[in-house]
Amino acid sequence: MSSATQLVNGVTQDVINVQDRGLSYGHGVFETMRVAGGQIPLWSLHCDRLKAGLRTLQVPLNEELLEREMAVALSSFPRDGILKLTVTAGVGGRGYRTPTHVATNRVLQWFELSPASVLPVSLYCCRYRLPCNPVLAGIKHLNRLDQVMAAAELEGAQQGLLLNTEGLVIEGLSHNLFMYKNGAWHTPDLHSCGVRGVMRRLLVDALIPAQGKKVVIRDIPFDELASADEVFLCNSVSGILPVAQEVTSGSRWQRFEQTQALCRGLGERYSCFTV
Amino acid sequence: MSSATQLVNGVTQDVINVQDRGLSYGHGVFETMRVAGGQIPLWSLHCDRLKAGLRTLQVPLNEELLEREMAVALSSFPRDGILKLTVTAGVGGRGYRTPTHVATNRVLQWFELSPASVLPVSLYCCRYRLPCNPVLAGIKHLNRLDQVMAAAELEGAQQGLLLNTEGLVIEGLSHNLFMYKNGAWHTPDLHSCGVRGVMRRLLVDALIPAQGKKVVIRDIPFDELASADEVFLCNSVSGILPVAQEVTSGSRWQRFEQTQALCRGLGERYSCFTV
Repeated sequence: MSSATQLVNGVTQDVINVQDRGLSYGHGVFETMRVAGGQIPLWSLHCDRLKAGLRTLQVPLNEELLEREMAVALSSFPRDGILKLTVTAGVGGRGYRTPTHVATNRVLQWFELSPASVLPVSLYCCRYRLPCNPVLAGIKHLNRLDQVMAAAELEGAQQGLLLNTEGLVIEGLSHNLFMYKNGAWHTPDLHSCGVRGVMRRLLVDALIPAQGKKVVIRDIPFDELASADEVFLCNSVSGILPVAQEVTSGSRWQRFEQTQALCRGLGERYSCFTV
Repeated sequence: MSSATQLVNGVTQDVINVQDRGLSYGHGVFETMRVAGGQIPLWSLHCDRLKAGLRTLQVPLNEELLEREMAVALSSFPRDGILKLTVTAGVGGRGYRTPTHVATNRVLQWFELSPASVLPVSLYCCRYRLPCNPVLAGIKHLNRLDQVMAAAELEGAQQGLLLNTEGLVIEGLSHNLFMYKNGAWHTPDLHSCGVRGVMRRLLVDALIPAQGKKVVIRDIPFDELASADEVFLCNSVSGILPVAQEVTSGSRWQRFEQTQALCRGLGERYSCFTV
Protein backbone atom coordinates (compact mmCIF):
# COMPACT_ATOMS: atom_id res chain seq x y z
CA MET A 1 0.00 0.00 0.00
CA SER A 2 1.34 3.43 -0.87
CA SER A 3 1.68 5.80 2.05
CA ALA A 4 -0.77 8.20 0.38
CA THR A 5 -3.62 6.03 1.60
CA GLN A 6 -2.80 6.09 5.29
CA LEU A 7 -3.07 8.94 7.75
CA VAL A 8 -2.04 8.84 11.39
CA ASN A 9 -3.38 11.83 13.33
CA GLY A 10 -3.99 13.64 10.06
CA VAL A 11 -0.49 13.13 8.68
CA THR A 12 0.51 10.76 5.87
CA GLN A 13 2.31 8.04 7.78
CA ASP A 14 2.47 4.25 7.95
CA VAL A 15 3.67 3.77 11.53
CA ILE A 16 2.29 4.33 15.01
CA ASN A 17 3.92 4.68 18.42
CA VAL A 18 4.78 1.25 19.76
CA GLN A 19 3.41 2.26 23.19
CA ASP A 20 -0.08 2.85 21.78
CA ARG A 21 -2.73 1.31 24.04
CA GLY A 22 -4.46 -0.02 20.93
CA LEU A 23 -1.50 -2.33 20.38
CA SER A 24 -0.86 -3.09 24.06
CA TYR A 25 -4.45 -3.84 25.08
CA GLY A 26 -6.80 -3.28 22.13
CA HIS A 27 -7.92 -0.11 23.91
CA GLY A 28 -9.82 1.52 21.05
CA VAL A 29 -12.50 1.07 18.40
CA PHE A 30 -12.71 1.00 14.64
CA GLU A 31 -15.17 1.57 11.80
CA THR A 32 -14.96 0.04 8.34
CA MET A 33 -16.87 2.27 5.96
CA ARG A 34 -17.95 2.31 2.35
CA VAL A 35 -16.68 5.34 0.44
CA ALA A 36 -18.59 6.29 -2.72
CA GLY A 37 -17.83 9.37 -4.81
CA GLY A 38 -15.66 10.81 -2.07
CA GLN A 39 -18.47 10.55 0.50
CA ILE A 40 -19.36 8.11 3.26
CA PRO A 41 -23.09 7.55 2.83
CA LEU A 42 -23.58 6.03 6.30
CA TRP A 43 -21.19 8.35 8.19
CA SER A 44 -23.69 9.55 10.78
CA LEU A 45 -24.46 5.95 11.81
CA HIS A 46 -20.76 5.04 11.91
CA CYS A 47 -20.02 8.13 13.97
CA ASP A 48 -22.79 7.26 16.46
CA ARG A 49 -21.41 3.79 17.04
CA LEU A 50 -17.83 5.06 17.24
CA LYS A 51 -18.77 7.55 19.93
CA ALA A 52 -20.81 4.97 21.87
CA GLY A 53 -17.86 2.58 21.81
CA LEU A 54 -15.39 5.22 22.97
CA ARG A 55 -17.73 6.21 25.81
CA THR A 56 -17.84 2.59 26.98
CA LEU A 57 -14.04 2.43 26.84
CA GLN A 58 -13.75 5.80 28.60
CA VAL A 59 -11.79 7.38 25.78
CA PRO A 60 -12.59 11.06 25.15
CA LEU A 61 -12.99 12.08 21.51
CA ASN A 62 -12.23 15.45 19.95
CA GLU A 63 -14.95 15.32 17.29
CA GLU A 64 -13.88 18.50 15.54
CA LEU A 65 -10.36 17.15 15.10
CA LEU A 66 -11.70 13.85 13.80
CA GLU A 67 -13.96 15.60 11.27
CA ARG A 68 -10.96 17.60 10.01
CA GLU A 69 -8.87 14.47 9.55
CA MET A 70 -11.78 12.67 7.87
CA ALA A 71 -11.99 15.56 5.41
CA VAL A 72 -8.28 15.24 4.63
CA ALA A 73 -8.70 11.50 4.03
CA LEU A 74 -11.76 11.91 1.82
CA SER A 75 -10.08 14.56 -0.29
CA SER A 76 -6.72 12.81 -0.67
CA PHE A 77 -7.62 9.08 -0.82
CA PRO A 78 -9.26 7.45 -3.88
CA ARG A 79 -12.92 8.45 -4.10
CA ASP A 80 -14.32 4.91 -4.00
CA GLY A 81 -13.50 1.95 -1.81
CA ILE A 82 -13.27 1.25 1.89
CA LEU A 83 -12.16 3.64 4.61
CA LYS A 84 -11.09 2.16 7.92
CA LEU A 85 -11.00 4.50 10.90
CA THR A 86 -9.30 3.40 14.12
CA VAL A 87 -9.34 5.51 17.28
CA THR A 88 -7.19 4.32 20.17
CA ALA A 89 -6.61 5.52 23.73
CA GLY A 90 -3.19 6.72 22.58
CA VAL A 91 0.19 6.28 24.18
CA GLY A 92 0.32 4.93 27.70
CA GLY A 93 3.00 3.51 29.92
CA ARG A 94 2.95 0.02 31.36
CA GLY A 95 -0.17 -1.02 33.25
CA TYR A 96 -3.86 -1.40 32.50
CA ARG A 97 -5.07 1.81 34.14
CA THR A 98 -6.07 4.45 31.60
CA PRO A 99 -3.83 7.54 31.91
CA THR A 100 -5.50 10.56 33.49
CA HIS A 101 -4.97 12.53 30.31
CA VAL A 102 -5.82 10.52 27.21
CA ALA A 103 -4.65 11.84 23.83
CA THR A 104 -6.20 9.54 21.21
CA ASN A 105 -4.39 8.28 18.14
CA ARG A 106 -6.49 8.31 14.96
CA VAL A 107 -5.66 6.10 11.99
CA LEU A 108 -7.34 6.40 8.60
CA GLN A 109 -6.64 3.75 5.96
CA TRP A 110 -8.03 3.29 2.47
CA PHE A 111 -8.57 -0.18 1.01
CA GLU A 112 -9.78 -1.31 -2.38
CA LEU A 113 -13.27 -2.76 -2.54
CA SER A 114 -13.36 -6.45 -3.47
CA PRO A 115 -15.62 -7.31 -6.39
CA ALA A 116 -19.13 -7.99 -5.06
CA SER A 117 -20.25 -11.61 -4.98
CA VAL A 118 -22.98 -12.17 -7.57
CA LEU A 119 -24.16 -15.52 -6.24
CA PRO A 120 -25.79 -16.18 -2.86
CA VAL A 121 -23.11 -17.03 -0.30
CA SER A 122 -22.32 -20.19 1.63
CA LEU A 123 -22.27 -20.03 5.45
CA TYR A 124 -20.07 -22.19 7.68
CA CYS A 125 -20.96 -22.37 11.37
CA CYS A 126 -17.63 -22.01 13.20
CA ARG A 127 -16.84 -24.31 16.13
CA TYR A 128 -15.28 -21.34 17.92
CA ARG A 129 -17.95 -19.70 20.09
CA LEU A 130 -18.27 -16.06 21.10
CA PRO A 131 -17.95 -15.56 24.87
CA CYS A 132 -20.77 -13.65 26.59
CA ASN A 133 -19.73 -10.19 27.72
CA PRO A 134 -22.66 -7.79 28.11
CA VAL A 135 -20.46 -4.76 28.92
CA LEU A 136 -18.57 -4.84 25.63
CA ALA A 137 -21.38 -6.35 23.50
CA GLY A 138 -22.34 -4.30 20.46
CA ILE A 139 -19.29 -2.07 20.15
CA LYS A 140 -16.60 -2.51 17.51
CA HIS A 141 -13.53 -2.56 19.75
CA LEU A 142 -10.04 -3.71 18.86
CA ASN A 143 -10.19 -7.01 20.81
CA ARG A 144 -10.97 -9.19 17.84
CA LEU A 145 -9.21 -12.47 18.60
CA ASP A 146 -12.62 -14.18 18.59
CA GLN A 147 -12.98 -13.29 14.92
CA VAL A 148 -9.38 -14.22 14.13
CA MET A 149 -9.82 -17.65 15.74
CA ALA A 150 -13.12 -18.27 13.97
CA ALA A 151 -11.76 -17.09 10.62
CA ALA A 152 -9.04 -19.74 10.79
CA GLU A 153 -11.75 -22.39 10.36
CA LEU A 154 -13.01 -21.06 7.02
CA GLU A 155 -12.16 -22.41 3.60
CA GLY A 156 -12.40 -20.68 0.22
CA ALA A 157 -15.26 -18.23 -0.14
CA GLN A 158 -17.17 -19.46 2.93
CA GLN A 159 -18.66 -16.84 5.19
CA GLY A 160 -18.36 -17.58 8.90
CA LEU A 161 -21.43 -17.92 11.13
CA LEU A 162 -20.79 -17.27 14.82
CA LEU A 163 -22.77 -18.65 17.75
CA ASN A 164 -22.22 -17.66 21.35
CA THR A 165 -21.22 -20.12 24.07
CA GLU A 166 -24.94 -20.76 24.70
CA GLY A 167 -25.53 -21.92 21.11
CA LEU A 168 -27.44 -18.85 19.99
CA VAL A 169 -26.88 -17.37 16.55
CA ILE A 170 -25.09 -14.03 16.96
CA GLU A 171 -23.70 -12.83 13.64
CA GLY A 172 -21.53 -13.51 10.63
CA LEU A 173 -17.77 -13.16 10.96
CA SER A 174 -17.95 -9.60 9.65
CA HIS A 175 -21.67 -9.26 9.02
CA ASN A 176 -24.96 -9.24 10.88
CA LEU A 177 -27.58 -11.84 10.03
CA PHE A 178 -31.31 -11.62 9.29
CA MET A 179 -33.80 -14.38 8.58
CA TYR A 180 -37.29 -14.15 7.08
CA LYS A 181 -39.89 -16.40 8.70
CA ASN A 182 -43.66 -16.32 9.15
CA GLY A 183 -43.93 -13.06 7.22
CA ALA A 184 -41.45 -11.08 9.35
CA TRP A 185 -37.73 -10.41 9.60
CA HIS A 186 -35.82 -11.68 12.63
CA THR A 187 -32.29 -10.75 13.73
CA PRO A 188 -30.32 -11.84 16.79
CA ASP A 189 -30.44 -9.83 19.99
CA LEU A 190 -26.85 -8.74 20.70
CA HIS A 191 -27.10 -8.25 24.47
CA SER A 192 -24.44 -10.90 25.21
CA CYS A 193 -21.96 -10.33 22.38
CA GLY A 194 -21.63 -9.39 18.71
CA VAL A 195 -21.24 -6.10 16.89
CA ARG A 196 -24.21 -3.81 16.34
CA GLY A 197 -23.69 -3.21 12.64
CA VAL A 198 -24.44 0.07 10.96
CA MET A 199 -26.26 -1.70 8.09
CA ARG A 200 -28.25 -3.70 10.66
CA ARG A 201 -29.34 -0.48 12.26
CA LEU A 202 -30.32 1.05 8.92
CA LEU A 203 -32.39 -2.03 8.11
CA VAL A 204 -34.09 -2.21 11.50
CA ASP A 205 -34.77 1.50 11.87
CA ALA A 206 -35.60 2.45 8.29
CA LEU A 207 -35.47 0.01 5.38
CA ILE A 208 -37.56 -2.87 6.75
CA PRO A 209 -40.28 -0.59 8.21
CA ALA A 210 -40.33 1.33 4.89
CA GLN A 211 -41.38 -1.90 3.19
CA GLY A 212 -44.22 -2.41 5.65
CA LYS A 213 -42.48 -5.36 7.29
CA LYS A 214 -41.92 -6.11 10.96
CA VAL A 215 -38.49 -6.89 12.41
CA VAL A 216 -38.13 -8.90 15.60
CA ILE A 217 -34.89 -8.67 17.61
CA ARG A 218 -34.63 -11.81 19.71
CA ASP A 219 -32.59 -14.87 20.66
CA ILE A 220 -32.31 -17.28 17.71
CA PRO A 221 -31.11 -20.84 18.45
CA PHE A 222 -28.91 -22.28 15.71
CA ASP A 223 -31.40 -25.06 14.94
CA GLU A 224 -34.10 -22.51 14.14
CA LEU A 225 -32.17 -21.20 11.15
CA ALA A 226 -33.11 -24.31 9.14
CA SER A 227 -36.79 -23.30 9.30
CA ALA A 228 -36.22 -19.80 7.88
CA ASP A 229 -37.68 -18.95 4.46
CA GLU A 230 -34.75 -16.68 3.62
CA VAL A 231 -31.46 -15.72 5.25
CA PHE A 232 -29.06 -12.87 4.49
CA LEU A 233 -25.87 -11.32 5.81
CA CYS A 234 -25.26 -7.59 5.75
CA ASN A 235 -22.65 -4.99 6.52
CA SER A 236 -21.92 -1.41 5.60
CA VAL A 237 -19.25 -2.30 3.03
CA SER A 238 -21.00 -5.03 1.03
CA GLY A 239 -24.65 -4.20 1.68
CA ILE A 240 -26.92 -7.25 1.66
CA LEU A 241 -25.66 -10.77 0.78
CA PRO A 242 -28.30 -13.48 0.24
CA VAL A 243 -27.36 -16.82 1.83
CA ALA A 244 -27.83 -20.07 -0.14
CA GLN A 245 -26.73 -22.63 2.46
CA GLU A 246 -25.20 -23.39 5.83
CA VAL A 247 -22.64 -26.12 5.37
CA THR A 248 -22.46 -27.83 8.78
CA SER A 249 -26.23 -28.41 9.08
CA GLY A 250 -26.87 -28.93 5.37
CA SER A 251 -29.58 -26.22 5.42
CA ARG A 252 -30.36 -24.69 2.05
CA TRP A 253 -32.42 -21.66 1.09
CA GLN A 254 -33.74 -21.28 -2.43
CA ARG A 255 -36.05 -18.28 -2.07
CA PHE A 256 -34.67 -14.77 -2.17
CA GLU A 257 -37.76 -12.63 -2.95
CA GLN A 258 -37.92 -10.75 0.34
CA THR A 259 -34.13 -10.33 0.44
CA GLN A 260 -34.11 -8.98 -3.10
CA ALA A 261 -36.86 -6.52 -2.21
CA LEU A 262 -34.64 -5.21 0.60
CA CYS A 263 -31.63 -5.06 -1.73
CA ARG A 264 -33.69 -2.90 -4.11
CA GLY A 265 -34.86 -0.67 -1.25
CA LEU A 266 -31.24 -0.21 -0.12
CA GLY A 267 -30.05 0.53 -3.66
CA GLU A 268 -32.77 3.13 -4.18
CA ARG A 269 -31.74 4.96 -1.03
CA TYR A 270 -27.95 4.52 -1.46
CA SER A 271 -26.95 3.96 -5.05
CA CYS A 272 -23.51 2.57 -4.15
CA PHE A 273 -25.29 -0.54 -2.86
CA THR A 274 -27.16 -1.15 -6.10
CA VAL A 275 -26.57 -4.78 -7.04
CA MET B 1 11.23 7.07 27.46
CA SER B 2 14.49 7.25 25.55
CA SER B 3 14.56 5.23 22.36
CA ALA B 4 17.50 3.21 23.72
CA THR B 5 15.03 1.14 25.73
CA GLN B 6 12.82 -0.01 22.87
CA LEU B 7 13.60 -2.48 20.10
CA VAL B 8 11.29 -3.39 17.24
CA ASN B 9 12.51 -6.49 15.38
CA GLY B 10 15.93 -6.03 16.93
CA VAL B 11 16.33 -2.38 15.91
CA THR B 12 16.15 0.65 18.22
CA GLN B 13 12.82 2.14 17.26
CA ASP B 14 9.70 3.56 18.88
CA VAL B 15 7.13 2.94 16.14
CA ILE B 16 5.48 -0.05 14.52
CA ASN B 17 3.67 -0.54 11.20
CA VAL B 18 0.11 0.74 11.51
CA GLN B 19 -1.14 -2.38 9.70
CA ASP B 20 0.20 -4.68 12.41
CA ARG B 21 -2.36 -7.31 13.36
CA GLY B 22 -1.52 -6.69 17.00
CA LEU B 23 -3.05 -3.23 16.67
CA SER B 24 -5.89 -4.25 14.34
CA TYR B 25 -7.09 -7.30 16.24
CA GLY B 26 -4.83 -7.96 19.23
CA HIS B 27 -3.37 -10.86 17.27
CA GLY B 28 -0.33 -11.55 19.43
CA VAL B 29 0.93 -12.26 22.94
CA PHE B 30 3.17 -10.57 25.48
CA GLU B 31 5.35 -11.36 28.47
CA THR B 32 6.26 -8.96 31.25
CA MET B 33 9.47 -10.15 32.85
CA ARG B 34 11.71 -9.27 35.76
CA VAL B 35 15.27 -8.43 34.74
CA ALA B 36 17.96 -8.75 37.41
CA GLY B 37 21.66 -8.24 36.79
CA GLY B 38 21.13 -8.38 33.04
CA GLN B 39 19.36 -11.77 33.25
CA ILE B 40 15.75 -12.93 33.23
CA PRO B 41 15.61 -15.47 36.04
CA LEU B 42 12.30 -16.99 34.88
CA TRP B 43 12.99 -16.88 31.12
CA SER B 44 12.36 -20.56 30.43
CA LEU B 45 8.90 -20.37 31.99
CA HIS B 46 8.08 -17.13 30.11
CA CYS B 47 9.28 -18.66 26.88
CA ASP B 48 7.12 -21.76 27.42
CA ARG B 49 3.99 -19.66 27.89
CA LEU B 50 4.84 -17.38 24.97
CA LYS B 51 5.20 -20.35 22.65
CA ALA B 52 1.99 -21.97 23.91
CA GLY B 53 0.10 -18.72 23.32
CA LEU B 54 1.48 -18.28 19.82
CA ARG B 55 0.57 -21.88 18.97
CA THR B 56 -3.02 -21.22 20.05
CA LEU B 57 -3.10 -18.06 17.92
CA GLN B 58 -1.48 -19.93 15.00
CA VAL B 59 1.47 -17.56 14.82
CA PRO B 60 4.78 -19.24 13.92
CA LEU B 61 7.80 -18.15 15.96
CA ASN B 62 11.43 -18.03 14.84
CA GLU B 63 12.95 -18.86 18.23
CA GLU B 64 16.53 -18.32 17.13
CA LEU B 65 15.70 -14.82 15.92
CA LEU B 66 13.88 -14.03 19.16
CA GLU B 67 16.81 -15.27 21.27
CA ARG B 68 19.17 -12.99 19.28
CA GLU B 69 16.93 -9.97 19.81
CA MET B 70 16.54 -10.80 23.51
CA ALA B 71 20.35 -10.86 23.78
CA VAL B 72 20.53 -7.39 22.17
CA ALA B 73 17.93 -6.07 24.62
CA LEU B 74 19.61 -7.58 27.67
CA SER B 75 23.00 -6.19 26.68
CA SER B 76 21.80 -2.69 25.75
CA PHE B 77 18.94 -1.96 28.19
CA PRO B 78 19.51 -1.20 31.89
CA ARG B 79 20.48 -4.35 33.80
CA ASP B 80 17.61 -4.24 36.28
CA GLY B 81 13.91 -3.58 35.85
CA ILE B 82 11.12 -4.94 33.71
CA LEU B 83 11.35 -6.24 30.17
CA LYS B 84 8.15 -6.44 28.15
CA LEU B 85 8.21 -8.68 25.09
CA THR B 86 5.37 -8.48 22.58
CA VAL B 87 5.12 -10.82 19.59
CA THR B 88 2.41 -10.08 17.03
CA ALA B 89 1.19 -11.79 13.86
CA GLY B 90 2.84 -8.93 11.94
CA VAL B 91 1.50 -6.88 9.10
CA GLY B 92 -1.71 -7.99 7.46
CA GLY B 93 -4.23 -6.44 5.12
CA ARG B 94 -7.86 -5.90 5.96
CA GLY B 95 -9.78 -8.93 7.14
CA TYR B 96 -9.63 -11.36 10.03
CA ARG B 97 -8.07 -14.29 8.19
CA THR B 98 -4.43 -14.81 9.10
CA PRO B 99 -2.18 -14.30 6.05
CA THR B 100 -0.72 -17.50 4.58
CA HIS B 101 2.78 -16.23 5.32
CA VAL B 102 3.05 -14.65 8.76
CA ALA B 103 6.14 -12.56 9.54
CA THR B 104 5.93 -11.69 13.23
CA ASN B 105 6.77 -8.31 14.70
CA ARG B 106 8.73 -8.46 17.96
CA VAL B 107 8.79 -5.54 20.39
CA LEU B 108 11.09 -5.36 23.40
CA GLN B 109 10.58 -2.55 25.91
CA TRP B 110 12.33 -1.79 29.18
CA PHE B 111 10.47 -0.24 32.10
CA GLU B 112 11.62 0.84 35.51
CA LEU B 113 10.65 -1.34 38.45
CA SER B 114 8.27 0.41 40.87
CA PRO B 115 9.39 0.35 44.51
CA ALA B 116 8.06 -2.84 46.16
CA SER B 117 5.13 -2.43 48.54
CA VAL B 118 6.27 -3.16 52.08
CA LEU B 119 2.78 -3.53 53.58
CA PRO B 120 0.21 -6.21 52.74
CA VAL B 121 -2.04 -5.01 49.95
CA SER B 122 -5.72 -4.18 49.78
CA LEU B 123 -7.90 -6.05 47.26
CA TYR B 124 -10.99 -4.59 45.58
CA CYS B 125 -13.37 -7.03 43.90
CA CYS B 126 -14.22 -5.41 40.53
CA ARG B 127 -17.84 -5.37 39.33
CA TYR B 128 -16.58 -6.05 35.81
CA ARG B 129 -16.57 -9.84 35.26
CA LEU B 130 -14.28 -11.90 33.06
CA PRO B 131 -16.17 -13.66 30.25
CA CYS B 132 -15.68 -17.43 29.96
CA ASN B 133 -13.63 -18.41 26.94
CA PRO B 134 -11.95 -21.81 27.30
CA VAL B 135 -10.04 -21.57 23.98
CA LEU B 136 -8.10 -18.44 24.95
CA ALA B 137 -8.00 -19.09 28.73
CA GLY B 138 -4.52 -19.12 30.24
CA ILE B 139 -2.58 -17.37 27.49
CA LYS B 140 -1.34 -13.79 27.72
CA HIS B 141 -2.77 -12.42 24.47
CA LEU B 142 -3.17 -8.77 23.48
CA ASN B 143 -6.97 -8.64 23.93
CA ARG B 144 -6.88 -7.00 27.35
CA LEU B 145 -9.98 -4.79 27.40
CA ASP B 146 -11.30 -6.88 30.29
CA GLN B 147 -8.37 -5.71 32.39
CA VAL B 148 -8.65 -2.11 31.15
CA MET B 149 -12.34 -1.99 32.08
CA ALA B 150 -11.75 -3.55 35.50
CA ALA B 151 -8.77 -1.26 36.22
CA ALA B 152 -11.01 1.78 35.74
CA GLU B 153 -12.84 0.80 38.95
CA LEU B 154 -9.75 0.92 41.17
CA GLU B 155 -8.72 3.74 43.47
CA GLY B 156 -5.32 4.56 44.88
CA ALA B 157 -3.13 1.58 45.67
CA GLN B 158 -5.95 -0.97 45.51
CA GLN B 159 -5.24 -4.23 43.71
CA GLY B 160 -8.09 -5.51 41.53
CA LEU B 161 -9.67 -8.91 42.16
CA LEU B 162 -11.42 -10.43 39.14
CA LEU B 163 -14.28 -12.93 39.18
CA ASN B 164 -15.68 -14.59 36.07
CA THR B 165 -19.31 -14.22 34.95
CA GLU B 166 -20.16 -17.24 37.13
CA GLY B 167 -18.91 -15.54 40.30
CA LEU B 168 -15.77 -17.65 40.69
CA VAL B 169 -12.50 -16.06 41.78
CA ILE B 170 -10.10 -16.06 38.81
CA GLU B 171 -7.14 -13.78 39.48
CA GLY B 172 -5.88 -10.36 40.40
CA LEU B 173 -5.83 -7.66 37.73
CA SER B 174 -2.20 -8.44 36.94
CA HIS B 175 -1.53 -11.23 39.42
CA ASN B 176 -2.61 -14.75 40.23
CA LEU B 177 -4.13 -15.47 43.63
CA PHE B 178 -3.49 -18.15 46.24
CA MET B 179 -5.25 -18.79 49.56
CA TYR B 180 -4.14 -20.93 52.50
CA LYS B 181 -6.88 -22.96 54.16
CA ASN B 182 -7.05 -26.22 56.15
CA GLY B 183 -3.29 -26.67 55.92
CA ALA B 184 -3.04 -26.45 52.11
CA TRP B 185 -2.69 -23.85 49.37
CA HIS B 186 -5.55 -23.34 46.92
CA THR B 187 -5.49 -21.41 43.64
CA PRO B 188 -8.24 -20.93 41.02
CA ASP B 189 -8.58 -23.32 38.13
CA LEU B 190 -8.18 -21.21 34.99
CA HIS B 191 -10.07 -23.40 32.53
CA SER B 192 -12.63 -20.69 31.71
CA CYS B 193 -10.49 -17.54 31.70
CA GLY B 194 -7.51 -15.85 33.37
CA VAL B 195 -3.79 -15.85 32.68
CA ARG B 196 -1.62 -18.80 33.71
CA GLY B 197 1.09 -16.80 35.44
CA VAL B 198 4.72 -17.76 35.37
CA MET B 199 5.08 -17.19 39.14
CA ARG B 200 1.92 -19.28 39.69
CA ARG B 201 3.53 -22.12 37.78
CA LEU B 202 6.78 -21.82 39.75
CA LEU B 203 4.82 -21.93 43.02
CA VAL B 204 2.63 -24.88 41.99
CA ASP B 205 5.37 -26.96 40.37
CA ALA B 206 8.29 -26.22 42.66
CA LEU B 207 8.13 -23.80 45.59
CA ILE B 208 5.03 -25.10 47.39
CA PRO B 209 5.97 -28.80 47.02
CA ALA B 210 9.50 -27.93 48.22
CA GLN B 211 7.99 -26.75 51.50
CA GLY B 212 6.10 -30.02 51.92
CA LYS B 213 2.74 -28.37 51.25
CA LYS B 214 -0.06 -29.40 48.98
CA VAL B 215 -1.59 -27.09 46.38
CA VAL B 216 -5.13 -27.63 45.12
CA ILE B 217 -6.18 -26.11 41.77
CA ARG B 218 -9.95 -25.78 41.80
CA ASP B 219 -12.97 -23.49 41.45
CA ILE B 220 -13.09 -20.97 44.31
CA PRO B 221 -16.38 -19.09 44.83
CA PHE B 222 -15.87 -15.47 45.92
CA ASP B 223 -17.60 -16.07 49.29
CA GLU B 224 -15.07 -18.74 50.18
CA LEU B 225 -12.23 -16.24 50.24
CA ALA B 226 -13.47 -14.90 53.58
CA SER B 227 -12.76 -18.26 55.24
CA ALA B 228 -9.12 -18.39 54.09
CA ASP B 229 -6.36 -18.21 56.72
CA GLU B 230 -4.07 -16.30 54.35
CA VAL B 231 -4.30 -14.83 50.86
CA PHE B 232 -1.60 -13.60 48.53
CA LEU B 233 -1.18 -12.28 44.99
CA CYS B 234 1.82 -13.12 42.85
CA ASN B 235 3.39 -12.37 39.51
CA SER B 236 6.78 -12.64 37.92
CA VAL B 237 7.62 -8.95 38.35
CA SER B 238 6.67 -8.36 42.00
CA GLY B 239 6.97 -11.88 43.39
CA ILE B 240 4.56 -12.57 46.28
CA LEU B 241 2.30 -9.86 47.76
CA PRO B 242 0.49 -10.71 51.03
CA VAL B 243 -3.15 -9.50 51.07
CA ALA B 244 -4.52 -7.74 54.16
CA GLN B 245 -8.13 -7.21 53.11
CA GLU B 246 -10.80 -7.33 50.43
CA VAL B 247 -12.70 -4.08 50.49
CA THR B 248 -16.13 -4.97 49.05
CA SER B 249 -16.75 -7.89 51.45
CA GLY B 250 -14.91 -6.43 54.43
CA SER B 251 -12.78 -9.58 54.71
CA ARG B 252 -9.50 -9.15 56.58
CA TRP B 253 -6.49 -11.41 56.95
CA GLN B 254 -4.04 -10.90 59.79
CA ARG B 255 -1.87 -14.00 59.49
CA PHE B 256 0.98 -14.14 57.02
CA GLU B 257 3.16 -17.00 58.37
CA GLN B 258 2.67 -19.39 55.46
CA THR B 259 2.92 -16.58 52.91
CA GLN B 260 6.14 -15.35 54.48
CA ALA B 261 7.57 -18.87 54.39
CA LEU B 262 6.89 -18.95 50.65
CA CYS B 263 8.42 -15.48 50.20
CA ARG B 264 11.56 -16.74 51.92
CA GLY B 265 11.61 -19.86 49.73
CA LEU B 266 11.28 -17.71 46.62
CA GLY B 267 14.00 -15.29 47.75
CA GLU B 268 16.39 -18.17 48.49
CA ARG B 269 15.95 -19.53 44.98
CA TYR B 270 15.82 -16.16 43.16
CA SER B 271 17.57 -13.41 45.09
CA CYS B 272 15.88 -10.61 43.10
CA PHE B 273 12.63 -11.51 44.87
CA THR B 274 14.13 -11.22 48.36
CA VAL B 275 11.83 -8.96 50.37
